[in-house]
Amino acid sequence: MPIAPPDREIRERTRAEFAALAQPYGALGRLESLGAWVAACQGVCPPRPLERVRLVVLAGDHGVARYGVSAYPAQVTAAMLHAFLSGGAGVTVLAHQHGLAVRVLDIAVDAESTDLPAEVTAYKLRRSSGPIHLTDALSGAEVEAALQVGETVAEQEIAAGADLLLLGDMGIGNTTPAAALIAATFGVGAEQVTGRGTGIDDARLADKTELIATALERARDRARDPQQRLAALGSADISVGVGFLVAAARAGVPILLDGVVSAAEACVAEDLDPGVLAWCAAGHRSTEPSQRLALEKLGLEPVLDLGMRLGEGSGAAAAVPVLRSAVLLVREMARLSDLVPEP
Amino acid sequence: MPIAPPDREIRERTRAEFAALAQPYGALGRLESLGAWVAACQGVCPPRPLERVRLVVLAGDHGVARYGVSAYPAQVTAAMLHAFLSGGAGVTVLAHQHGLAVRVLDIAVDAESTDLPAEVTAYKLRRSSGPIHLTDALSGAEVEAALQVGETVAEQEIAAGADLLLLGDMGIGNTTPAAALIAATFGVGAEQVTGRGTGIDDARLADKTELIATALERARDRARDPQQRLAALGSADISVGVGFLVAAARAGVPILLDGVVSAAEACVAEDLDPGVLAWCAAGHRSTEPSQRLALEKLGLEPVLDLGMRLGEGSGAAAAVPVLRSAVLLVREMARLSDLVPEP
Repeated sequence: MPIAPPDREIRERTRAEFAALAQPYGALGRLESLGAWVAACQGVCPPRPLERVRLVVLAGDHGVARYGVSAYPAQVTAAMLHAFLSGGAGVTVLAHQHGLAVRVLDIAVDAESTDLPAEVTAYKLRRSSGPIHLTDALSGAEVEAALQVGETVAEQEIAAGADLLLLGDMGIGNTTPAAALIAATFGVGAEQVTGRGTGIDDARLADKTELIATALERARDRARDPQQRLAALGSADISVGVGFLVAAARAGVPILLDGVVSAAEACVAEDLDPGVLAWCAAGHRSTEPSQRLALEKLGLEPVLDLGMRLGEGSGAAAAVPVLRSAVLLVREMARLSDLVPEP
Repeated sequence: MPIAPPDREIRERTRAEFAALAQPYGALGRLESLGAWVAACQGVCPPRPLERVRLVVLAGDHGVARYGVSAYPAQVTAAMLHAFLSGGAGVTVLAHQHGLAVRVLDIAVDAESTDLPAEVTAYKLRRSSGPIHLTDALSGAEVEAALQVGETVAEQEIAAGADLLLLGDMGIGNTTPAAALIAATFGVGAEQVTGRGTGIDDARLADKTELIATALERARDRARDPQQRLAALGSADISVGVGFLVAAARAGVPILLDGVVSAAEACVAEDLDPGVLAWCAAGHRSTEPSQRLALEKLGLEPVLDLGMRLGEGSGAAAAVPVLRSAVLLVREMARLSDLVPEP
């Protein structure tokens, strides 16, 4: 059964509400379309305040990290998990500022992680994913299992009362499979999607481009099928993200996307289950070329454009107050007719 | 005595702090330069959280409003003052969301305003300002008085503990003097600065352009002097805003600008007292062409770009969480060296 779109009539009604507020027509700009989108997702006008926003950070390593695609060693992924748990990661600082619930999951970190709480490793699928220029990232069965985990995690977040979901990522090397998935989705070459990720130099950028080109060549026509695309070019953590987006959209919960990794997840999710995208908004424009390309192709206009490329869900978290503003304005502003009686 | 710039050494030290955080170099993008700017303004690294943000809305009418430059009658200005006081204006909804103190001042509303609280009318200078295509907006003495009021109001806000100041505007017709002041500051023609304001049609846009051209022609060389510029092309409320910006910068308190009116105020303030600009950041990019032109000429990159054109300080208020994020990130993020010991 196809995924039902957000409520079109409620969207129009909310736009009409904005037009009746004590402001010149359209003066709130993007805030009006964002507020109308939230209302349409909720199926109620005016929309409810976005009080229970929940972020899930999916962590995983990537076989390509050993081949010079990142400025950092893969060990940083495991180290960063501790920063998430102690609140010292970029996105956890933002989450604390905005009152977002944060859940961190070790999906495929290349470490035993015995020192992590059980709830963090409860859905661990494997250690790292295959180096996509040499071999598939995952088996078909692993993709199925990862999609299922994503669905389960989304359902748990929704059961916890989420009225907006954010997806974050952590994993050295993860812009490589993300860029490859985006390139395969839209049939563009490696040179159009390869970016500097954590900040690699020109020589490494050339190597990374070559690596992505090799991966795309290796996957070829298999990449047309979204599950095969995940197996050939993706990773365990990204496949979980895809399952998460599909389940959230099916349940009718709006999603605020972050950077290149969640953009790649959205690309595959929309192919896997058309209609997912209508439940997604873009938190920010990353400096990664593949994220910009994906947003353009998907027709998503980002809320923020601050030159960020941290990942972790940080660009989505930073955009949450704007989405909340959109909802509060249509709920709380006076109507022009209340101030200036009609002649 | 020239206005001292924010502390350059603190700015560099804060940039170095960002570089040492648990993130790839520069991955927080604009948040890093914004955080460093706040620190430099405060003269302390890391910067203090921006807890006491205060917005002053300066309301006034404009003689030009009778000549077809707005989609609304001047009576709306007085009506909107009540929306500010009851919390139903766009900016007051945002201020409540973000915990900003709001102060509304009737500087030159074209009404007796006997039903407004005394603190709102305490600095009322006159009813409306002159129609700038026919006559000066203010006398030289009125400009002096308005600048003094702005200084006094800023000093009061700073005494109340403001660690960030926002300027808002309310006044039907106010994009006309604002655009004229910006055009005169940079010596560009009326056609480059005239916008649709509250949403006028093509015919009114042509009339408004003509009116601004006439005003610029009337002012001519007098407009080179910033006080004469305010007298010829400005208004009482805008002149108060100029005085406010100068006093805030002199006192070393950072300012987040809003739309076209505060951009015009910043243009004149910088000419009046060079160095003001270094204490200003731009909250958002308005759809008004003169605001975009002013930001470009002033070298200010806006925080948000959401197609807003409400005024009232709304674009600045919406940007406050981003500025707060910048400060919190450098204060609270872990350092990379704490997570991954140096080899």
